[in-house]
Amino acid sequence: MGEFELIRQYFMPLARLHGSRSVVLGPGDDCAIQSIPPGSDLVFSIDTLVEGVHFPAGYRPDYLGWRALAVAASDLAAMGAEPDCFTLALTLPEADEAWLRDFARGLGRAAESFGLVLAGGDTTRGPLTLSLQLHGLVEQGRAIRRSGACAGDLIVVSGTLGDAGAALDYLDACSPSEDEQSVLKRYHCPQPRLKLGMALRSLATAAIDVSDGLLADLNHILEASNVGANIDRAHVPVSQALARLKGDAAMDYALNSGDDYELCATIPEARWASVPKSLKQQLTVIGVIEPASGLRLDGTAVVSGSEATGFDHFRRKI
Amino acid sequence: MGEFELIRQYFMPLARLHGSRSVVLGPGDDCAIQSIPPGSDLVFSIDTLVEGVHFPAGYRPDYLGWRALAVAASDLAAMGAEPDCFTLALTLPEADEAWLRDFARGLGRAAESFGLVLAGGDTTRGPLTLSLQLHGLVEQGRAIRRSGACAGDLIVVSGTLGDAGAALDYLDACSPSEDEQSVLKRYHCPQPRLKLGMALRSLATAAIDVSDGLLADLNHILEASNVGANIDRAHVPVSQALARLKGDAAMDYALNSGDDYELCATIPEARWASVPKSLKQQLTVIGVIEPASGLRLDGTAVVSGSEATGFDHFRRKI
Repeated sequence: MGEFELIRQYFMPLARLHGSRSVVLGPGDDCAIQSIPPGSDLVFSIDTLVEGVHFPAGYRPDYLGWRALAVAASDLAAMGAEPDCFTLALTLPEADEAWLRDFARGLGRAAESFGLVLAGGDTTRGPLTLSLQLHGLVEQGRAIRRSGACAGDLIVVSGTLGDAGAALDYLDACSPSEDEQSVLKRYHCPQPRLKLGMALRSLATAAIDVSDGLLADLNHILEASNVGANIDRAHVPVSQALARLKGDAAMDYALNSGDDYELCATIPEARWASVPKSLKQQLTVIGVIEPASGLRLDGTAVVSGSEATGFDHFRRKI
Repeated sequence: MGEFELIRQYFMPLARLHGSRSVVLGPGDDCAIQSIPPGSDLVFSIDTLVEGVHFPAGYRPDYLGWRALAVAASDLAAMGAEPDCFTLALTLPEADEAWLRDFARGLGRAAESFGLVLAGGDTTRGPLTLSLQLHGLVEQGRAIRRSGACAGDLIVVSGTLGDAGAALDYLDACSPSEDEQSVLKRYHCPQPRLKLGMALRSLATAAIDVSDGLLADLNHILEASNVGANIDRAHVPVSQALARLKGDAAMDYALNSGDDYELCATIPEARWASVPKSLKQQLTVIGVIEPASGLRLDGTAVVSGSEATGFDHFRRKI
């Protein structure tokens, strides 16, 4: 079997078009075709992962497949979009069958879990690099942008922060402890908050996913919305595992490390009272949007350096 | 100025959203948003170019910018789609200002020429690799697929074939001759046949762009349509420059080398008579679709090897 037949064999099961609301032509032609349902907008984002930069050399291919799709799906979650389909541009040094099988398995599990079908792609030879473009659907004009935060809005985050960043310290651990395993899982198997994002569509004035670190990502909302914020450090949610592993340093991970893929959103205080309990349980209020620009922690301005810029690995959305 | 501000500065001028019929939110958020006009389908394709694989190491960045967008736009041409917007996933070893300026200039010229605006992207550090996803629009259900060719249809190609493949022999020429310059231009500055593709929408039963070589690409139509074909070698169009440069070998370039980005389409014979003269002048009839599977040259089956497989550099659409 040739290299391309091999690749086709492993990826074609991911193109189950009945899983899409809108894809009318999938892989195998010059282009794919999507027929967007009337009343819906298309929401899309492209993300690249490079071996040795965004994941360790020799990283487990099944983890890589999951992570690649999860990281990209997190951008759809931040817009409140419903996942629909994706394209995969895969550059790899050689068509190693075991690697392809495991990668496709991880990717396929993520695709099924998130509700995404493969609509097309491109395979090339070169240093291991993946670019995935995800397409989501959202009611026309209802996507959550970064630019809608207003003074007085409450700032909320989902889940706990800092685990995935701390996990980097244990990637090579031979027999990780229970706490180490707990944070490693957050790194290897991130869970984009897709349902939460969709639920926030009618509540949030702005949202972003925490990929580079809470402070850095919140700053993007502040800049886009032309406002400032104060964060109450004591309320920033940290897992028990992270607290036990890192002690006093846990908060630094929660504020500045990336890869957690939780959502950070702003919600008008008046609306917060009417948020259903089941949704409130998934969110923690960590601060408030203020009219004065800049980001403050317990009232003290965050000046610069790691606290403000987050996890900067030469990766930025254009 | 930081690396990201530099990148942003050079790419933002490409995001002139008034140039798009459908992009309502461009770069700067978690996702871009496209509001597809009612009655239109979205047509999209992703293409990757890797340094040292799809273009020479140290290749001129302005040529690279043009080529990257032209190669990808050619897929839209093959579907008969009208270009609308694109995303750019750019992986580069460092943010070299002169390189970025020149690359953005070439990319910008192509974007303007083809009618494409930048809707979003991702920039990462790593070996020089580009993935571009292009979005086109086409009247609902009217995109040209590979699968519609029928026995009796005429096979047509646009322009001349083989020039870009021959150009690879002269990439390092210090003072190329006029003929060498002529074929080099085809390699460095490919012209996707966008208007022609749109004009073919109401005429062609199938189409593909010639990126891997005429025989290889025509084979994709034959397989998708479950038919065969006979090509009249004497009618395959070759430029005078290529004929002078390569003599008897010119036809081999025309049949088997890639990178020309002309269109190959099938048109029912009855329709051919009514094709407007201005369109006929851009096309050459080179053969006919036959019911028996397989590809024949002057009645003799093309067996295998380079003649059948074309320019295979481990690159294939999924």
